Amino acid sequence: MCKVDLNSDLGESFGNYTIGLDNEVIAHISSANIACGFHAGDPLVMDRTIIEARNAGVAVGAHPGFPDLMGFGRRNMACSPKEAKAYVKYQLGALMAFTKANGVKLQHCKPHGALYNMAAKDMDLALAMAEAVAEVDPSIIFLALANSKMVDAAKRVGLRVASEVFADRAYQADGTLAPRKQSGAVIHDTDVAIARTIRMVKEGKVTAITGEEVTLQADSICVHGDNPSAVEFVKTIRAKLMEEGVTIAPLSEIV
Amino acid sequence: MCKVDLNSDLGESFGNYTIGLDNEVIAHISSANIACGFHAGDPLVMDRTIIEARNAGVAVGAHPGFPDLMGFGRRNMACSPKEAKAYVKYQLGALMAFTKANGVKLQHCKPHGALYNMAAKDMDLALAMAEAVAEVDPSIIFLALANSKMVDAAKRVGLRVASEVFADRAYQADGTLAPRKQSGAVIHDTDVAIARTIRMVKEGKVTAITGEEVTLQADSICVHGDNPSAVEFVKTIRAKLMEEGVTIAPLSEIV
Amino acid sequence: MCKVDLNSDLGESFGNYTIGLDNEVIAHISSANIACGFHAGDPLVMDRTIIEARNAGVAVGAHPGFPDLMGFGRRNMACSPKEAKAYVKYQLGALMAFTKANGVKLQHCKPHGALYNMAAKDMDLALAMAEAVAEVDPSIIFLALANSKMVDAAKRVGLRVASEVFADRAYQADGTLAPRKQSGAVIHDTDVAIARTIRMVKEGKVTAITGEEVTLQADSICVHGDNPSAVEFVKTIRAKLMEEGVTIAPLSEIV
Amino acid sequence: MCKVDLNSDLGESFGNYTIGLDNEVIAHISSANIACGFHAGDPLVMDRTIIEARNAGVAVGAHPGFPDLMGFGRRNMACSPKEAKAYVKYQLGALMAFTKANGVKLQHCKPHGALYNMAAKDMDLALAMAEAVAEVDPSIIFLALANSKMVDAAKRVGLRVASEVFADRAYQADGTLAPRKQSGAVIHDTDVAIARTIRMVKEGKVTAITGEEVTLQADSICVHGDNPSAVEFVKTIRAKLMEEGVTIAPLSEIV
Repeated sequence: MCKVDLNSDLGESFGNYTIGLDNEVIAHISSANIACGFHAGDPLVMDRTIIEARNAGVAVGAHPGFPDLMGFGRRNMACSPKEAKAYVKYQLGALMAFTKANGVKLQHCKPHGALYNMAAKDMDLALAMAEAVAEVDPSIIFLALANSKMVDAAKRVGLRVASEVFADRAYQADGTLAPRKQSGAVIHDTDVAIARTIRMVKEGKVTAITGEEVTLQADSICVHGDNPSAVEFVKTIRAKLMEEGVTIAPLSEIV
Repeated sequence: MCKVDLNSDLGESFGNYTIGLDNEVIAHISSANIACGFHAGDPLVMDRTIIEARNAGVAVGAHPGFPDLMGFGRRNMACSPKEAKAYVKYQLGALMAFTKANGVKLQHCKPHGALYNMAAKDMDLALAMAEAVAEVDPSIIFLALANSKMVDAAKRVGLRVASEVFADRAYQADGTLAPRKQSGAVIHDTDVAIARTIRMVKEGKVTAITGEEVTLQADSICVHGDNPSAVEFVKTIRAKLMEEGVTIAPLSEIV
Repeated sequence: MCKVDLNSDLGESFGNYTIGLDNEVIAHISSANIACGFHAGDPLVMDRTIIEARNAGVAVGAHPGFPDLMGFGRRNMACSPKEAKAYVKYQLGALMAFTKANGVKLQHCKPHGALYNMAAKDMDLALAMAEAVAEVDPSIIFLALANSKMVDAAKRVGLRVASEVFADRAYQADGTLAPRKQSGAVIHDTDVAIARTIRMVKEGKVTAITGEEVTLQADSICVHGDNPSAVEFVKTIRAKLMEEGVTIAPLSEIV
Repeated sequence: MCKVDLNSDLGESFGNYTIGLDNEVIAHISSANIACGFHAGDPLVMDRTIIEARNAGVAVGAHPGFPDLMGFGRRNMACSPKEAKAYVKYQLGALMAFTKANGVKLQHCKPHGALYNMAAKDMDLALAMAEAVAEVDPSIIFLALANSKMVDAAKRVGLRVASEVFADRAYQADGTLAPRKQSGAVIHDTDVAIARTIRMVKEGKVTAITGEEVTLQADSICVHGDNPSAVEFVKTIRAKLMEEGVTIAPLSEIV
């Protein structure tokens, strides 16, 4: 039976600031990446979001980022692998205090924003993060960009790894994402995006931006809950996948 | 056999900033309270300090504080018990990522600075923190001011609790600390301080500032490593206690 | 001619987080209190908000708060007067860089949240803040709670001071605000609130919660742009004041 | 008459953390670069450091950095020029509140750490910072790495600019610094370093690491007060420069 996970970033609110339609998107996903207080999230938000995920039957993951609240963790920072490793451990542990207190198992860890993008291409950084996860709890799944250094790093460290694909992004011939700046890198036609995603999930294939057929492991699809149309897209892609006989399931049932 | 723990705050350095003579004091204590990144400490410092404590045979505890790096956690903040509970969980978890990664058991939790002082007198705050510890890991010992609300809160929640005494502080008739502002509240004569401490440890008694005999549980003595004379005092009090037949042992061997 | 200022907190967004209906409320007020990066706001938001205020013909003021982004500056902090003075200077200067760059005169300074509430009753804290303003630029108006220590402090320091009143709050016989916890402290009937405000502005009088007639200087009315109904209230109170022949004008035209 | 400025970073302490031998180095320099609270420094430290500089007859400059206290502003961050511009304005203004309150003129602005290094090679970033300074106060001198993009940017914006040289660093044939990683990039022989500096100051020339004679404007020499031997070096280079007939003077007397 064909299965895929739908993951989304939740718990990005901070103090008096609310962001994201967590309550709406949570009903349609199978795994939540929860911010850990460095780039977003705070202790109260982390606690509340874990409870909401648990109540919705959604698996919980850590979403560590750079210590850059002002930049929402989206700006590259020249942290050393040693620093990144310690930052991931710190955030992972902080979230695990709340998963333990709420009787939830931490399923996965997915780095956020610039940390994710940098590690996708930088083996030292990817290894540092995979090691951080393995040293804190080797049963945690590393959720990584398909065909990236992060996948290689997780395997080398002996972690279970899940490959993430993007419905609305074009891929290069080597199976990596086409850079956003490149023309055609973002797929705006929803029908095309969904059709491509279904093929990635069912066949493990996608047509590269340069025409080649690319092999791609699609364990999880990254979706968003930032705005009403993003939530609408999640509902649609979920429905279409199910129509195609694909089961939506958390990562722990997939890898 | 009479035993007591010597605890000291370690790991208060931050980024490029170094504070405390950790390397000197660590040889003379039995338990280390390690800052968790809110009022002091950072992920690299936490990791390094746990390793140093492990290598020195010193037990490791969490030292959570208010989110006030600029004030070193020494300024009272009107956080709600719910906020304080979440802050303690967050910091506890963050430190536990490093204890796990380094193969160390987290022995205790001692709130820092203003959080400690406020909770000593505020049952709601004390309960919030004791619950935070119990929900994250009920095997953690709560290190609390002797005769304070924190001791009551830990007992109510079912946590093991250790009572902390201060060598250089006067006590009131009810067994609580005399406020620092009060004349005579701080004992400057080292010999007197040590003699009082030995009596607290061996007899569980101290003479109050108003003359009464007070009963006091003395499981642990708070010592400091801020400056060379503080380290000297730790060496002296340790030697004197041992001369008196008192064994220096970590909290886990005492309560 | 009878005049009053309508002031509102703007520029409380931070990084990726948006808060407040700044664009809607700005058309209806005469003075904006702009957050300065400690409890809310960031450099980009400060710059943008000053430009928006300038373009809307709204006078600009600084809104310094405690260094507590997680608590939005609403939690009391035991900062010393010396610390508070330095924090106000820092934030005032930071905002003035943007007013200078945008060709705007900084009209006033109104402390935020817990800093405002504490200084209203604490002469040392109020003096520290008034001195901070006077030392940075003595032409800045101190916007202070009517009948509070802040008014006294500003006068003692020689600053121009504007007295702020609240439409929806009850007053005590001594002219200070009835504490929020007290029954009847918040006036929920909009018509009553507006009628009281008009009387405060035109007659300088309000009926205390205990029935006495109280004299009150009403230079500015605090209004909010947090949500659509708050904005609606601003429009209504503005219209009613104008119907009554009251001119809405910035503080610099009033005190 | 030949003149040069000696500049050093001061005011890098933060809260309870003390760093740098400010009190020792201040007697030997002519200009102080004062941290502004983003990468180091806090409002109390800024105030105190300005007073100490004023009392020592040392000119005061702003030393803005990236918002990265944990990394001491030494890690590259992918901030946009627009963000960097706003961050520099914010920090400049914050420091100016204290210079105004203390009756001191802000002489110069020198970006710190990674911000300095990035802007030396990135014209957009350099321009953003020069514009920030010019928009806040066009009389401020921009202290910039000799032969860098920062010098060009300051000139384009119409700011007075001072060129900074390093006594202990090798230069490339194009007049820029040899990268630290390159063999021979750091000059460890004090006598050689001082002889080179004297020649840079008196003749405006230095021999490149590849042997060529390079022209270099040397308005200011960067010195350090981190440790006793650094302070010793400052004393020595100052004495040697004076022996050679060079006058030590603040930037405002040089450019």
